[in-house]
Amino acid sequence: MEIIRVQSAGFCFGVKRAIRLAKEVADKYQDKNIYTFGPIIHNNDVVRELENKGIRIADNPEVKESVIILRSHGIEKQILEKLKKNRNIIIDATCPFVKKIHKCVELLTKENYFVVIIGDRGHPEVKGIKSYAEEGNYIIIENKKEIENMEINKRKLGVVVQTTQETENYLNICDELLKIKGEIRIFNTICDSTSIRQMETMEVAKKSDIMIVIGGKHSANTRRLVEISKLYCREVYHVENEKELKEDWFKNKKVVGVTGGASTPDYIIDKVIEKIRRIK
Amino acid sequence: MEIIRVQSAGFCFGVKRAIRLAKEVADKYQDKNIYTFGPIIHNNDVVRELENKGIRIADNPEVKESVIILRSHGIEKQILEKLKKNRNIIIDATCPFVKKIHKCVELLTKENYFVVIIGDRGHPEVKGIKSYAEEGNYIIIENKKEIENMEINKRKLGVVVQTTQETENYLNICDELLKIKGEIRIFNTICDSTSIRQMETMEVAKKSDIMIVIGGKHSANTRRLVEISKLYCREVYHVENEKELKEDWFKNKKVVGVTGGASTPDYIIDKVIEKIRRIK
Repeated sequence: MEIIRVQSAGFCFGVKRAIRLAKEVADKYQDKNIYTFGPIIHNNDVVRELENKGIRIADNPEVKESVIILRSHGIEKQILEKLKKNRNIIIDATCPFVKKIHKCVELLTKENYFVVIIGDRGHPEVKGIKSYAEEGNYIIIENKKEIENMEINKRKLGVVVQTTQETENYLNICDELLKIKGEIRIFNTICDSTSIRQMETMEVAKKSDIMIVIGGKHSANTRRLVEISKLYCREVYHVENEKELKEDWFKNKKVVGVTGGASTPDYIIDKVIEKIRRIK
Repeated sequence: MEIIRVQSAGFCFGVKRAIRLAKEVADKYQDKNIYTFGPIIHNNDVVRELENKGIRIADNPEVKESVIILRSHGIEKQILEKLKKNRNIIIDATCPFVKKIHKCVELLTKENYFVVIIGDRGHPEVKGIKSYAEEGNYIIIENKKEIENMEINKRKLGVVVQTTQETENYLNICDELLKIKGEIRIFNTICDSTSIRQMETMEVAKKSDIMIVIGGKHSANTRRLVEISKLYCREVYHVENEKELKEDWFKNKKVVGVTGGASTPDYIIDKVIEKIRRIK
């Protein structure tokens, strides 16, 4: 029996990288207080795993002389400055795609563009992004409706987009902005990790006799992976962990495909694959 | 009786300016051969009027030691260089809005953008615009269909738009381009002269007891002015020239509004207004 694991299954590149960096830090700075600034990801298993390695969560920039890990969403520029001033060692695990957005906002500001951030106001990534713009020289837009009621009378607009925005919403907003007579400079900074995961899942499903999709039963993006798998593979099972696997599913199967949703940690995918190997 | 003339009636700013410059040139260089490079506008009356002032049409860059008037559409860079080399005196009547597009293309090329020109391939304005891009570093797109069948794998796109493009077509094309992961810098160079003429016509129609709309009976943009006028004024007449005016239309009218389509020369509008004054 061959097992094919979808390469992009589970956490995205940025989250995986942040968790890896955090673990390295735990090993390197065993004599220091180590914090992530905010939970590294909204997944209790992962937060607990880091806690076991001595990494706690800080949410106050007053913390001093510790090791601070910046999570993949990034952090507000002013808070970062405060943390540095307080003689903390900063481990920057900000996703490189998010960092690129910070750079775009700085560039646009320097070149006198009025900055438009397409994204969710309350999201930590967007709070981080806006902190690189100048007060009064940026706007956050969540949807097309907002912009229809707005008067943007600037002649040079610079646009960036939160990494997890839907392309449809981004296009609808841009359509309104494109009507200004002047210049609009758009950085499409949407990250493809979700659509890449879906495409790769489709490719693996085509080759597999059975597909195992791992993720929360209520997770919308995991359920989408189940739907996609069903289009290309006869037998598809949605499980939350290795305990739900049943031996008889794998009888007479030559190729098993394994994929996982965005909130499924690698070690759960690993455990599922191990269990399938043992069944064989 | 008060007569209100719609300010933007008739030729757009760029065409009016080109004709004015041509007439000035005719007075200044009476001892020289004077040419417009291509007909200054597709209106025989105007071309004939300039001919009477000694201005002929050239279409060959080999012309030498003459005065050459560049029409409002602009001209290809290479032809302009040739004309200069042939010791011609160049009178640049290129519309400033078109010249701005040339500058945008030069800027985008210099800053390593791949240039996308939204416009009609065969139109002289677009031929002029593309001559400011580098060979192999630009593309002309007429409609959304074309771009769907195209693979644009550039990461830095710079977009300019022919002045007379419809906003709808421009937005549809941009929607496809906006999907690239990278940067897109768009100069919305559509000229508002048509929509401004319509808005001003509406404003004048609101105040008038009678509206006279001047322009070809088959001219689509003139007929649109008739429709708009009818929404706001009880009595609207569409005429091609002053001969069609009838005295009894103006009985008991206090305010007369006068507007004209994009191909209606000023002097025809003037003659209509004169005749109305005489009726009064």
